[in-house]
Formats: sequence, structure tokens, C-alpha cells
Amino acid sequence: MTDESPFADIRGLIAGMPGPDRDAVAMVRERDAMLTKPAGALGRLEQLVEWLAAWQAKGQPSLDRPLVCVFAGSHGVVARGVSAYPADVNRQMLDNFAAGGGAINQICAAYGLGFKVFDLAIDLPTGDICAGPAFSEKDCVATMAFGMEAVAAGTDCLALGEMGIGNTTIAAAIYAALYGGDPAHWVGRGTGVDEAGLARKTDAVAAALVHHRGHLDDPLEVLARLGGREIAAMAGAILAARLQRVPVVLDGYVATAAAAILHAVDATALDHCLSGHVSAEGAHAEVLERLGLVPLLALGMRLGEGSGAAMALGLLKGALACHRDMATFAQAGVSGRDQG
Amino acid sequence: MTDESPFADIRGLIAGMPGPDRDAVAMVRERDAMLTKPAGALGRLEQLVEWLAAWQAKGQPSLDRPLVCVFAGSHGVVARGVSAYPADVNRQMLDNFAAGGGAINQICAAYGLGFKVFDLAIDLPTGDICAGPAFSEKDCVATMAFGMEAVAAGTDCLALGEMGIGNTTIAAAIYAALYGGDPAHWVGRGTGVDEAGLARKTDAVAAALVHHRGHLDDPLEVLARLGGREIAAMAGAILAARLQRVPVVLDGYVATAAAAILHAVDATALDHCLSGHVSAEGAHAEVLERLGLVPLLALGMRLGEGSGAAMALGLLKGALACHRDMATFAQAGVSGRDQG
Repeated sequence: MTDESPFADIRGLIAGMPGPDRDAVAMVRERDAMLTKPAGALGRLEQLVEWLAAWQAKGQPSLDRPLVCVFAGSHGVVARGVSAYPADVNRQMLDNFAAGGGAINQICAAYGLGFKVFDLAIDLPTGDICAGPAFSEKDCVATMAFGMEAVAAGTDCLALGEMGIGNTTIAAAIYAALYGGDPAHWVGRGTGVDEAGLARKTDAVAAALVHHRGHLDDPLEVLARLGGREIAAMAGAILAARLQRVPVVLDGYVATAAAAILHAVDATALDHCLSGHVSAEGAHAEVLERLGLVPLLALGMRLGEGSGAAMALGLLKGALACHRDMATFAQAGVSGRDQG
Repeated sequence: MTDESPFADIRGLIAGMPGPDRDAVAMVRERDAMLTKPAGALGRLEQLVEWLAAWQAKGQPSLDRPLVCVFAGSHGVVARGVSAYPADVNRQMLDNFAAGGGAINQICAAYGLGFKVFDLAIDLPTGDICAGPAFSEKDCVATMAFGMEAVAAGTDCLALGEMGIGNTTIAAAIYAALYGGDPAHWVGRGTGVDEAGLARKTDAVAAALVHHRGHLDDPLEVLARLGGREIAAMAGAILAARLQRVPVVLDGYVATAAAAILHAVDATALDHCLSGHVSAEGAHAEVLERLGLVPLLALGMRLGEGSGAAMALGLLKGALACHRDMATFAQAGVSGRDQG
């Protein structure tokens, strides 16, 4: 049977994803064993270097061009009062990023990370998911393709973040559709809504699930019906990164929703992804567990903008520096372990 | 009653410790509320900046001269086979640090951190704690005073680490003396001892506790009897940093033993200290809980050398960059929260 849906090409790309480069990992382990430290003493820092090697397919992994991409989208559901901030903030924050004033600008500057913003029709909100699809399947695929451009400029490690007033409601709807359960279970405070705002978020997720009932079995259809442009673009970027041998660092609750869509299509689709941090948004920890991702940081952050992923990239730089530049036992004339 | 013990001056310094600068914290909070992000959205990154302000006593805290100090000592107890590495490694690792080949050298280079090694008579091991005191009380005080020099060169944030074959056994003995319980509870694999080595470590801690029984009520006497030069020097550095308004980032299991001594003397002595990471050494998490310290990182590291504390300093740089350089709502023309 031929898949004639607009998602056929996406499914084809997912089916063609490469696996890890085990030779590269072996090269990293071989060097690691010679470095002037007890075996395993750098803990997860060592595993991070192996992960870079596996997915860059390089026995000497690099972080020469780390890149943070922030995808910005606008959501029709905001009209239902699901955010503490007005939709105008979308455009204002894009201007703030361009002027270098956002949190993510400072983190990128602190760690020498490249930074790029993708404006996904920020002045054209997607449809209200309580009353119809966010966008058409065709538009969804086109947006995924646009997101694939994130790796086009050339990077050796990609951190993915987002900005979009109302998109924690969108993420909650996606998780509820993928994993079931009470809508309230997936809804959190986001940027800081009050009790009434929280109730409106929960109502919106519940209404969306009712409206789209019977059409939520295919994760890619979930993306088109309940998602948003920045979510679709991040899903495209994750997939393109895999194909181009670029490891990905995921940001928080919303960025992980893009990853969850791909994971629901193919459980190996996130093998090249690292969770940069676990968000303060309540259900994020559970989502990460479902995805088999162990977050690198747990700092109670809930800003988005790729901020948690960029902090994690900062740690990765330290991890790789140890592997790349430490002396070996032979170089340093340091005695190894005692025998017996 | 006059305290005529060699520790009288140390007790005097502890009694004179300054508290946090609440005005500086208020200044940080005032600016934070104006930055282009939802209140609290940077989570612990915001608290870290407040902590820097409180203990630097600066409303605009700085990280212009972060410094990692590694204190190196040698231990008589190594003759009992408590380490997987020979004592020769102490001198070899100092040479490795000097040549820039250690893990800590790479982490400092990655984050632009100053680095200084304190050689505490590395070729003169302390006494075997199973058969006598590590060193005299007078030597212990002199070593603490030497450690105080760590802040003399001028730094605005001090990370403390150590190097010393056998010193996880020393740390375990200190914890067992301070907190009681089965010696085996406090003993871990350190640099990676096998089962027999682990048994020798446990036996050594048990023997030391028996030998010094009846003389372990005073934490400073615990330090002299069961400690080591690097532990005493780190305790001195922590105390000097407090007096000179320098916040301290602690490394792992061994560095925390120096902190635990001071905490046992005065429960407020570590208020200016941040735990950089929780070590893979089993009992470290429990020690941190006893000290009321919440580690910034949990990466399964167990190297020492200040490596975990230096990674944490890397994170601090990102945290401070956000606070210092983000635009305010007014500067960026970003709308605040909706009313109602």
C-alpha cells in the first residue's frame, strides 16, 4: 500500500535514519582509557563525548560550530486566555533577540555559541486547536521542511529551543494526545498563569482533545491538528540533524513535544538527542522518562528560548575539552593502577 | 574560661564571620524583576546570582576573577593499601597540572578560570591515622593558615578541590567521626578500588576510630587526628573566603569533608558555600543533605581536582551573564504580564 498522505516523505526520512557510529565510539573509549584519570572518573562527561562521537560519526568529536536555533510561532489558542502574556510579546521578543537582549543571547555569548532565530510566520497565528486543526497537513510538512534548514548552515551540535506565547498549552495537548490521561495532568503554569489561567489551559486542552477525537492515532496528524509552527519546525530540525550527523540538545517542555512526535513514530528517532535540562513545568520529567532521556541539568528553569539547552552546551564544551586535551599516562609519566 | 588550645584563633575567626549582605540581594531582585523574562523563569540561575551578591556584598555581583584552587596532600594511611594508585602519583599529578595535562586544566581553559595548586608537603605524608594523629594540632592550624592564602591573590569566586592518593579514606574517617554509624557506610570506591581494597579502606577507618576513641568530640581535633593537610588547608580557605567576602564552590566527597569540619563547629559556617556537584562516591549525597547543601550538578563525577566545582563555575558564568546583560522590559519595549 502506497502512503499518499502529505507525510509520506517524512516517513521515508524517518525510515532512513542512520544509527550510531560504533567505530567512532570505540576510538573515544580507547583514548579515554589512556587519559590521566581513573577509568570512569569523569562520569557523565565521558558519556557525553561518546555520544558526540556516535552521532557526529567522528572518532575525534568536535564542538567547533555549536549552534542554538530558536523557532518562534504564534498560536490561535491564545485568544482563550491561556497565557499570562499577550500575543504581542511574540514579535517584541523576536526584536529583543535581534537586539541581543534576551537570556539566550547572554548564554550564547558566555559559551561562544552560534545563535539563529527562525521566525515562523509570527504574525499569522495557527488555528485555534479547540475548534479546528492548527494547520493543514501540507502546511505542517512545509514547516517541517523549513525547520530542516537549521542544519543547512553547518553545525556540529545543534541546540533547539522555541518562543511562542501559548505554546505550553500546545505542548500539553500533544502529550495528552500521545500519552492519554487527564488533560490537567499535562498542564502547568508555563510563564506563570494564575489559578484561573491554569483552568483555562486545562479547559482548552480538554476541548481540543474532544474536537479532534478519532483523528489522533497518527503522531504526525497530532502534530498538524494540535501543534504549532515552531513545534513542526523543531521536529524537522531534529530529523534533519540525524540525517546530517549532527547531535541535538533539546530544551524544555515545548521543545520536547516536537521530539515526542518523532519518538511516537519511531522509538529510535531520538537516539541522537540529549535532554539539556528538565524544566520546572511539572510533567516534563515524566515525558523525558517516557522518551528514555536523562536530563543533563535540573535547575528549575522554565523560560524556553533554548536557554536550558544552551546551558547544557556550555557543559558539553567542558566535557569535550577534557577528552581532547588531557595528557595521557604516557605523556605525563603518571603511574597507572597498582597491580593486584 | 580561656581557650588556650592551638585552635583558639580559628574559633575566634569562626565567631567573627560576617553574614549575607541583604541589601545586595535586594538590588539583584529589583533588577531581576525588570528583565525580559517571566518572574522566576531562570530558576536556580537567579538564585545563584543572589547568592553571589549576598556573599560578595555587591549589588552587581562579578565573576571577573574566578579561581580554582587545588590542594594536594599525602597520606600515611596509603601504606595500608587503601588506594588503587601508588603514592608516587601525587607528585606525578602535580607535575601533570603544572604541564597543563590534567582534567582540571582543560575545564579551567574552557571557562576562563584561574587555576592555582597548593603543594602541601606532598613528599611528606601525614601520620597513619590508624596508629596516631595525622598531624599535631599546631601543624594543623599552620596548614589552615596556609590554606587561607588561597584568597590572598584576589578572586571574586573560589572553587576548592584537592588531590591526594588515599584521601577518600581520610574523608570517610572524618564523616564517621562527625556523624557516627558503621564505617562501611562512609567508605566508597574512590578512584576505583576492588572488593579487597574496599575492605582495607573500611578496616582502616574502623581502626582509626578505635585508636582515637574519646578524642573526637571537637571537630577541629577530628581534623588534626583523622584529617590531612589538603583537608585542613581547604577548611582554612573556606573560612578566609567568608571573611574576605568571597563565595566558595565546593568540589566533591573530599573537599566537602573540610566543609563538614567547619559546619560541625558552627552550622552557619557554610552559608557562603555552594556545592558544585554531588559525587559518585556513595555517601556524598547524604553528607550534602546533612550540611543543607543542594548540589548544582549531578554528573556521576568522582575525580576530585576541583573538576566538579569548576564545571559548576562554568554554569555560574552563564547565570551571571543573564542577570548582568539581559535587556529590561522598558529597554526592549516588551509588554509585561496581562492584568487580571
